[in-house]
Amino acid sequence: MDSAYPILSQIIQPSELHKLTEKELTELARDVRQAILDKVSQTGGHFSSNLGTVELTVAMYAAYHTPPDKIIWDTGHQAYPHKLLTGRLPRFDTLRKHKGLSGFLKRDEHELDYFGAGHAGTAISAALGFAAARDQLGTKEKVVAVTGDAAICAGMSWEALNHAGDLGTDIHVVLNDNRMSIAPNVGALTKYFTRLRSRPQVQGMAQMAKSLVERVGGPAHRIAAGLRHGVTHYFAPEQTGTIFEEIGFEYIGPVDGHDLPLLLEIFRNMREVNYPVFVHAITVKGKGYEVAEENATKWHGVVPFDLQKCELPSKAAATTYTSVFGEAMIELAKEDPKVIAITAAMPDGTGLTGFAQELPKQYYDVGIAEQHGVTFAAGLAAGGLKPFCAIYSTFLQRGYDQVLHDVCIQNLPVRFAMDRAGLVGDDGPTHHGTFDISFLTHIPNMTLCAPRDATELRSMLAWMASYDKGPSAIRYPRGNSPENLPESRTPIELGKCEVLGIPGVPRGDEKQIDAVIVAVGSMVTEAWEAAQQLHDEGVHILVINARWCKPIDVDGISAWMKPSRPLVIIEENVRIGGFGQQLVDGLAERNLLPRAHKLLTLPDGWVEHGTQPVIRAGVGLTADSLVQAIKGLRSGKGIA
Amino acid sequence: MDSAYPILSQIIQPSELHKLTEKELTELARDVRQAILDKVSQTGGHFSSNLGTVELTVAMYAAYHTPPDKIIWDTGHQAYPHKLLTGRLPRFDTLRKHKGLSGFLKRDEHELDYFGAGHAGTAISAALGFAAARDQLGTKEKVVAVTGDAAICAGMSWEALNHAGDLGTDIHVVLNDNRMSIAPNVGALTKYFTRLRSRPQVQGMAQMAKSLVERVGGPAHRIAAGLRHGVTHYFAPEQTGTIFEEIGFEYIGPVDGHDLPLLLEIFRNMREVNYPVFVHAITVKGKGYEVAEENATKWHGVVPFDLQKCELPSKAAATTYTSVFGEAMIELAKEDPKVIAITAAMPDGTGLTGFAQELPKQYYDVGIAEQHGVTFAAGLAAGGLKPFCAIYSTFLQRGYDQVLHDVCIQNLPVRFAMDRAGLVGDDGPTHHGTFDISFLTHIPNMTLCAPRDATELRSMLAWMASYDKGPSAIRYPRGNSPENLPESRTPIELGKCEVLGIPGVPRGDEKQIDAVIVAVGSMVTEAWEAAQQLHDEGVHILVINARWCKPIDVDGISAWMKPSRPLVIIEENVRIGGFGQQLVDGLAERNLLPRAHKLLTLPDGWVEHGTQPVIRAGVGLTADSLVQAIKGLRSGKGIA
Repeated sequence: MDSAYPILSQIIQPSELHKLTEKELTELARDVRQAILDKVSQTGGHFSSNLGTVELTVAMYAAYHTPPDKIIWDTGHQAYPHKLLTGRLPRFDTLRKHKGLSGFLKRDEHELDYFGAGHAGTAISAALGFAAARDQLGTKEKVVAVTGDAAICAGMSWEALNHAGDLGTDIHVVLNDNRMSIAPNVGALTKYFTRLRSRPQVQGMAQMAKSLVERVGGPAHRIAAGLRHGVTHYFAPEQTGTIFEEIGFEYIGPVDGHDLPLLLEIFRNMREVNYPVFVHAITVKGKGYEVAEENATKWHGVVPFDLQKCELPSKAAATTYTSVFGEAMIELAKEDPKVIAITAAMPDGTGLTGFAQELPKQYYDVGIAEQHGVTFAAGLAAGGLKPFCAIYSTFLQRGYDQVLHDVCIQNLPVRFAMDRAGLVGDDGPTHHGTFDISFLTHIPNMTLCAPRDATELRSMLAWMASYDKGPSAIRYPRGNSPENLPESRTPIELGKCEVLGIPGVPRGDEKQIDAVIVAVGSMVTEAWEAAQQLHDEGVHILVINARWCKPIDVDGISAWMKPSRPLVIIEENVRIGGFGQQLVDGLAERNLLPRAHKLLTLPDGWVEHGTQPVIRAGVGLTADSLVQAIKGLRSGKGIA
Repeated sequence: MDSAYPILSQIIQPSELHKLTEKELTELARDVRQAILDKVSQTGGHFSSNLGTVELTVAMYAAYHTPPDKIIWDTGHQAYPHKLLTGRLPRFDTLRKHKGLSGFLKRDEHELDYFGAGHAGTAISAALGFAAARDQLGTKEKVVAVTGDAAICAGMSWEALNHAGDLGTDIHVVLNDNRMSIAPNVGALTKYFTRLRSRPQVQGMAQMAKSLVERVGGPAHRIAAGLRHGVTHYFAPEQTGTIFEEIGFEYIGPVDGHDLPLLLEIFRNMREVNYPVFVHAITVKGKGYEVAEENATKWHGVVPFDLQKCELPSKAAATTYTSVFGEAMIELAKEDPKVIAITAAMPDGTGLTGFAQELPKQYYDVGIAEQHGVTFAAGLAAGGLKPFCAIYSTFLQRGYDQVLHDVCIQNLPVRFAMDRAGLVGDDGPTHHGTFDISFLTHIPNMTLCAPRDATELRSMLAWMASYDKGPSAIRYPRGNSPENLPESRTPIELGKCEVLGIPGVPRGDEKQIDAVIVAVGSMVTEAWEAAQQLHDEGVHILVINARWCKPIDVDGISAWMKPSRPLVIIEENVRIGGFGQQLVDGLAERNLLPRAHKLLTLPDGWVEHGTQPVIRAGVGLTADSLVQAIKGLRSGKGIA
């Protein structure tokens, strides 16, 4: 037993909560909150959202019987209490560390992580699938989806509610309404939730709900009837129904998501009914840690900090791609009022917070709605503007069809700025941006570039602002701009690579070339470092910065090919459909592919979480891997 | 002047409608309907949906001022009246013919086709983009989105409504509610619309609305106030608000979508208000053609027919991939009750109508909601079932992130059956299924096969039903199964190709091989035909049926490679990220790629509509192209 968490440390599985008294459950909630405070302040991780779901989680596990009941969490970063209540306290110090606990849910981490979740809006669909499977198989367990007020604005949440209301099967949805996802929410639904919350009945709500629950308590059918006809009308007799009732759900709420006794009664009663129920719980992000309650956005994701000081360490002043993107966008938008910035609920993460403050009229936050965001941008472009969609590589996956069908078929000049391209690190496989070269370059009319550093990012953004002939996209990694690359630069030109040359040899003077490395974006720094290492050993490596993933400068690169000269291609993207495969095809078509060639890419598999350097090394995307590859090719090893 | 359409034939642009009297507009509507009846019965095309939007379109163009006002149509197949009112009557005989009018909206077909549309649910997003561009540029035109009761169930429609309600800008949405998209609709919202329609006030609605509109008519501010506080409460004083009002729209309706005078008054008044308005119009699919009114699904898309006989020609009894899929699914599902079929609003198109009738409990129609459909299937699979998502190749694009994030990261055994893979023909670029090899094979854990004919489709489906280790997908084309291929077959084995051999040479006896063709799915028949043609000329071509796009049988194919033996790879997919590029990479990695090789694929561009044979020939995906390619390679032409 860990004396810091006397009750929690004895909980291995949620069924044990059924034995606890209400007083013990209250103490358990205190333990869970304290554990999050203690552990996350040491490891870093998602902080304020998890402080908000402590009582909800304790109450659900005390009321539902898990297993076999299934609780499906939308977006894993509200699920640390769930992890703590499922026996993972002893491993919590490994949170988000390489080979440690994931920061999100993962089916192969725990059997009660019924459905993994990194991208928002998936829980209701998945839960409805579990519920339908239960109905097919004739079992009787309950299925609950826990979603958030931002996630429910994602289109797929609505699609799922619409289907669930139609099926009318036994599914419970809990809305964890903390009035924000990562940043304060936007959208008409958010205003609607605010109206629901501001009903006069919310005052003294807890007491009213309690007495109501007592009144309707008893046999299941009375509860059902009571819930159906009672709760909403009791709270708001003048309302004929909320949106959720209109599409077939029982609506209960709003309820105080931190009132454990109330939640216990509600969930225990809910467990007895077998039709679609929607519970609207109001929670406070950062609950129990005052400074986090006051500024939940700042405390959403944290690095390790001193719990007593109530302060986050100040960020290092390094130049990140994100910060340079934000600055460059402000400059471009000030120069040209037609430049518009769009984010999908990620103003901070994409670096647009300053833009939003300085140029609010040229800025749109569409919420967690990448599909709409892309087609909205297509409309803006068709209307004569220059929209930049700043969407992480991994989240643009949600807008793939819209990029293809609405932007590229019509050849509209929408700009896509994909931050977090490549391995993102601690967030792991649901968030790595390792597919964008593959999912964008096969779309006709698209263009895609990748800068070697932040200075080139700035130049490429300026190029994109000036390019009106069709869609364009740029991918750049999480983290700091490298500082080891040559400062001399050639202007950005569509489809033209940049020959960086050989370290230590003046450009134009490359008489002896022992091998060529073609590197994409984030890998140029590794290529240059490898070339420098090999230069010290007397081996002359010509480094080419690909710059463009579409169109690829096959002709420019071809000029440096010789049958006997080894070629290595490196990119932070999967191999299939990536830059390297396309370059190989282009060179082979011209019969210019050297026999000694090698592709360094991400594997055809899922890369687990860990720091960027650790996991890049794990998959061989480093200067050392390049040196080894070149040595292997030069010695004839690894060639059939 | 065309005496058959005396008014319509004089209309070149919609602004001319402003000069017409109400009586003339009524005659114009008659002309438009007659033109659709006459023309579409000759050309084939979307029939019943366009008969339903005649009065809506006439009324909108008579009320709005287009240009500069913009009317954005969701899913082009309700927009033939729009085409007819924008000067395209003389070209209507070319509808859906190669180089003729598109069956959908296209920006490069007409300047008033403001936004192209093939996939459903895009109009509100695009319209909001146009409205925001207007606001940025300081112009004053109106923007109207016309969407359908099925399209509005697509998640992105909701995302767009949520954003529009939040922005509060001047945007009008018209819901063309014909109670079905292609098949009868599903979903809780559909039931909700039914409830709205069944309000007692709908009786005598037209007269009531008229008098109301007269009452509030006059200065714009009175109209605004009247609409805001009047219409809904007048119709339904006991209602505090519809879903659309809750998220920030003025709701007007339901109104009779065929009552031209009423529509004229409503739209003329609407044009004066400058905030979000939502008009709910009830229309009848097939309006004015009795048999189509009675069975709108049957008459949704038609082949040429005799207008007087009121009968569609009976379909040819040929074996289509679609029909075989439907039969095979019934067999599999009868054998194993865990087999589940899912469609996204396309039971007819995917061949599942019979399944739905015979096995309704194992069948789900999720509506136009591919995102939810995929993750719902992931939930079913996680719950122990064997879901088959039957979604056209082009529509699975909508579920790309869900395939990746919810199915493949978790390695769940969801099966994807992609009909209409390859060029679909008359529907054109928004509907071609020419990207699925590229967007699926780069996702780890995915497997993807492609049958050479309907018999192999059946075998592969059986294999998929038995494969529980992870996700699987199958792609097959629109149309009939080929009949020219050898009947001898090898069992389906994951990642193993099928060597068809050389025409006229017994298998195992291939002593002389002059070239190899590796063909994917729909192209195997072309490959065999080419090999037969060349056999007649004494040239021996070995044909390999790739079977698997992932994993590709590089080893199996390698066994037939020789440096001097030409290789042609053919697939009905774009080149980038496709099968051929991956095979080239795999062979080059093994140093087994012949110098004389060629890829026949779809171009990196958009293929226009036309019949399948015509457009396949246009892009060189035919036996003739193969013969030429092989002759070129053998003569050394086309090799650098």
